[in-house]
Amino acid sequence: MADELKLFRTWSSRYGLRAVHALKIKGIDYETVFEDLKNKSAALLEYNPIHKKVPVLLHNGKPICESLVILEYIDEVWKHSPLLPQDPYEKSMARFRAKFGDEKVMPSIWSVFVSQGKEQEEAIPQAVANLKFLEEQLKGKKHFGGETIGYLDIALGWMANLISLLEEIIDLKLVDAEKFPLLSAWMNNFSDDPVIKECWPPRDKMIEKFKAMHAQYLKQAA
Amino acid sequence: MADELKLFRTWSSRYGLRAVHALKIKGIDYETVFEDLKNKSAALLEYNPIHKKVPVLLHNGKPICESLVILEYIDEVWKHSPLLPQDPYEKSMARFRAKFGDEKVMPSIWSVFVSQGKEQEEAIPQAVANLKFLEEQLKGKKHFGGETIGYLDIALGWMANLISLLEEIIDLKLVDAEKFPLLSAWMNNFSDDPVIKECWPPRDKMIEKFKAMHAQYLKQAA
Repeated sequence: MADELKLFRTWSSRYGLRAVHALKIKGIDYETVFEDLKNKSAALLEYNPIHKKVPVLLHNGKPICESLVILEYIDEVWKHSPLLPQDPYEKSMARFRAKFGDEKVMPSIWSVFVSQGKEQEEAIPQAVANLKFLEEQLKGKKHFGGETIGYLDIALGWMANLISLLEEIIDLKLVDAEKFPLLSAWMNNFSDDPVIKECWPPRDKMIEKFKAMHAQYLKQAA
Repeated sequence: MADELKLFRTWSSRYGLRAVHALKIKGIDYETVFEDLKNKSAALLEYNPIHKKVPVLLHNGKPICESLVILEYIDEVWKHSPLLPQDPYEKSMARFRAKFGDEKVMPSIWSVFVSQGKEQEEAIPQAVANLKFLEEQLKGKKHFGGETIGYLDIALGWMANLISLLEEIIDLKLVDAEKFPLLSAWMNNFSDDPVIKECWPPRDKMIEKFKAMHAQYLKQAA
């Protein structure tokens, strides 16, 4: 019997896209269940009672939650086209940097996005410092994972899509090709990879969504 | 040539203790470097420039940071006495629950510890709900890892030491044996395990440290 594999996600979730990218890279068939976070399905609440969040990967009736945990699961169950490095030290570095991406890079870029004037000026240096750290990791490499897209590329994949959207909305360039030649090139390479590219949510819908969020934040701050 | 293995930690850090417990369970020799967080060593700043935090495990000159990343590294490099389950689904559950412990259980217990009166009353139900979830995971098992101490036991190990300390300081029992028979038993079993037991920091010094923190929080809130 074929595996039952369902991915619960929203159309725009960057965490959900991690699972999508991993499954696509490995060429694994699955069914998508699109969730509306304003009206969560009974299934989502059953499978992720703790966080009630997407993504959830349901494999033969067993739910796996948390996007980075899902990535490791996919990589362990379907061992071809490995995503994580095989060397334990390199593997630990990939895990460390993925966590850094979520806990430091993402909030620091968000702080720039939702602020204005002096507050925004003060938020920029931290975002730049975090991006510089990632720039360093790309020295001599096309992808964070080396020659091919790996776990860390997928974990940081939101950057390749989201940063340019946010930059467009606030009309401020954070990752320019002069200051961040490697990161800029990686964002383009990753974003335009044939397997990755087909999974991005529609750019116009994303712009609309984040423009609305941006307006909401500024209104609250005013 | 023997491996060079150094663990940078503080005397009291619950994250540092995770690495200690994993190394002890596996019977791996290592050198401890005690850090003073008010006066961090040049080595710590060099090895963990991002977070400047303990623990850092230095293995043959290569630093590994973040306690849960360190646990996975130790388990991959020294494969005897495995800490993580071998089954990918069980492994993903252990990872999910460890993250839940850090992101939900720990802050919810802390909220009870640093609050008073009505605020404390309101904080208790969330802590209890989180603890109930962990209680459920112990059904039919001595340890979270099953018959032996594993990754999740080590990741949640702080509970076995810290909860009773905090309870003593605020004179409030959160995990009582009637409401949480399995969790109470686990806390005792884990805490008193011969290998684990010898690693706990001195209780009187811990009480002193957390009493001072508690007083500081209440002073700020007043």
